Amino acid sequence: MLPFRVIEQAHVEQLLDMKNVIKLVEKAYTLKEQKEASLFPMVFHEFAPGKADMDIKSGHLTGANIFGLKLVSWFGENPGKNLPALVGFVMVLDSETGVPKGMMSGEPVTLMRTGAAGGIGAKYLARPESEHLLLIGSGHLAAYEIMATLMTMPRIKKVTVYNANSYDKAAAFCATAKAKLTEKFLAPYKADQSLYNMLLDRIDIEYAAAADIRRATEEADIIITATPSRKPIIMKEWVKPGTHFSCIGADMEGKQEIDENLFAVARVFVDDVNQAVTVGETKTAVKKGLLAREDIVAEIGSVILGQTPGRQSDQDITIYDSTGIALQDLITADYVLKQAEAKGIGTVAKL
Amino acid sequence: MLPFRVIEQAHVEQLLDMKNVIKLVEKAYTLKEQKEASLFPMVFHEFAPGKADMDIKSGHLTGANIFGLKLVSWFGENPGKNLPALVGFVMVLDSETGVPKGMMSGEPVTLMRTGAAGGIGAKYLARPESEHLLLIGSGHLAAYEIMATLMTMPRIKKVTVYNANSYDKAAAFCATAKAKLTEKFLAPYKADQSLYNMLLDRIDIEYAAAADIRRATEEADIIITATPSRKPIIMKEWVKPGTHFSCIGADMEGKQEIDENLFAVARVFVDDVNQAVTVGETKTAVKKGLLAREDIVAEIGSVILGQTPGRQSDQDITIYDSTGIALQDLITADYVLKQAEAKGIGTVAKL
Repeated sequence: MLPFRVIEQAHVEQLLDMKNVIKLVEKAYTLKEQKEASLFPMVFHEFAPGKADMDIKSGHLTGANIFGLKLVSWFGENPGKNLPALVGFVMVLDSETGVPKGMMSGEPVTLMRTGAAGGIGAKYLARPESEHLLLIGSGHLAAYEIMATLMTMPRIKKVTVYNANSYDKAAAFCATAKAKLTEKFLAPYKADQSLYNMLLDRIDIEYAAAADIRRATEEADIIITATPSRKPIIMKEWVKPGTHFSCIGADMEGKQEIDENLFAVARVFVDDVNQAVTVGETKTAVKKGLLAREDIVAEIGSVILGQTPGRQSDQDITIYDSTGIALQDLITADYVLKQAEAKGIGTVAKL
Repeated sequence: MLPFRVIEQAHVEQLLDMKNVIKLVEKAYTLKEQKEASLFPMVFHEFAPGKADMDIKSGHLTGANIFGLKLVSWFGENPGKNLPALVGFVMVLDSETGVPKGMMSGEPVTLMRTGAAGGIGAKYLARPESEHLLLIGSGHLAAYEIMATLMTMPRIKKVTVYNANSYDKAAAFCATAKAKLTEKFLAPYKADQSLYNMLLDRIDIEYAAAADIRRATEEADIIITATPSRKPIIMKEWVKPGTHFSCIGADMEGKQEIDENLFAVARVFVDDVNQAVTVGETKTAVKKGLLAREDIVAEIGSVILGQTPGRQSDQDITIYDSTGIALQDLITADYVLKQAEAKGIGTVAKL
């Protein structure tokens, strides 16, 4: 009889805050670079093309004595059944004994660690004086990408949001952006009044929907793409020197958000080389011969550790291709488990 | 908030009986043959060679509207920490919505479905008049292989048990075999007095440890191998015509239980061709060119469905290479979940 803790979505949300998740994800990236972490092969299955799929991402964080997996299902018709389209769980096991430690709802872990990834890409690769963030996509990831980037890039003054299918959705998102960010992310910092006020101030900037993607691109210092797009939304000739891209959306065959020709002129960084060239934003450029696998400058962990320089001039275009790796989920989930244990949150089930 | 059921080991044991598991595993095999089931790629990781590893087997049973995975960890040093060496869980999800239905301790599911596989191999490939079962291995699988084979092969009169490392262990196993089988497997049938008595009678045969593996092999009609061996225990020249093998133990690189030359003269059947040629008993013969992938007669599901003949004469040597597939686990776990739900067994946790 082996007890383990199960934590439901609302409790996972309550136990996570973006400041800590950014630190945790940076830690996961650096452990990977230091070979204290490994990814296992990803399992992907499509139940019905374009309608339902699932993947299992797994790995081992030697440095944290844990291994485990995240299974995420996407069933596009679920909302019509009053169920979320994305359903998943993270299971964390002890890598000294193989015994399950706990599991939790996968969605809040995914949203937070994916937001953190976009912000970390900007932190290590964008120009420090960046003032203008362009977010492509106004869906469920948008608030997470914005919050993480506001935390890592203190000079941001304006966020432009573009939705390729609906200007109105982008406008609606912007109309309530401040309230949404405050509600979603600031509660955990209430006890620290000065931090809370600083973040409240950080959020208090301009949010505007973009009608013209070309103009929005020309104005942006940092561009984060977080859509399920299957064709490029941003063309190379619109991009000004010095722009940084954090590419978040492309995580499987067929998905693409930016012009593959950008990879021929940019300094390219990734979270995991194997995933980037097979399922990430990088894959199309590699497939078309615009970028060789060896042209990828480094995995982001190497930049965080100071082993590889990020951008080398204000004129560089930089790309961070974040495909999303199990190590981000595992380190975040392990943190949730420790908090839950300390606070007695969750159900203890037995195996 | 998504509720799902968690069932601990003792309850899984209580909800499973071998007669039903044999039926369920046959069903999984036939669904696979009918393309109503698919296996996803297996994930394997070795934490420390020969000391600790884990695998994730996953798949989809279209015919049963479920998909899911089994994660099994093997940590050889666990018993010294008062923990089981094998720890695992099965997670079952709804393949119409991606929502988790439930999870349970993996060990009893594995033991029962692996026993069933050995018995099913004999049922469809051994000579019906087989009287003598030789079991290689006296470990945790032994009782399961024997019970399943006694259920599928009604004329068995003698079980010989061989342990390559310790005659005494095999003898100790045999000394209490009847009591062990009665205790482990017969309780679920107490309500059906005639079935119970029939099985009690079936169990009431001779159990003898073998000192001389060559002689034991020469006498056997059915040989089941269920060890973690890394070198052949049974040589080709000892095997009499008409013998059937169910090879259970080999499920990863490096493991082998019988002389690979047997594959050159036998009719070879498998549970899954891909797994058999990469990790199963079949792999060594394929690697050495003694058997081509195309020489595998069929997957067992085809024999169960009557689409491919099993043995063609009393002189055939038949081999069933059972590597163990996720579909066996999923169909068995789904049955446990249904029973548990009907009886209100297990903990309902939330994601």
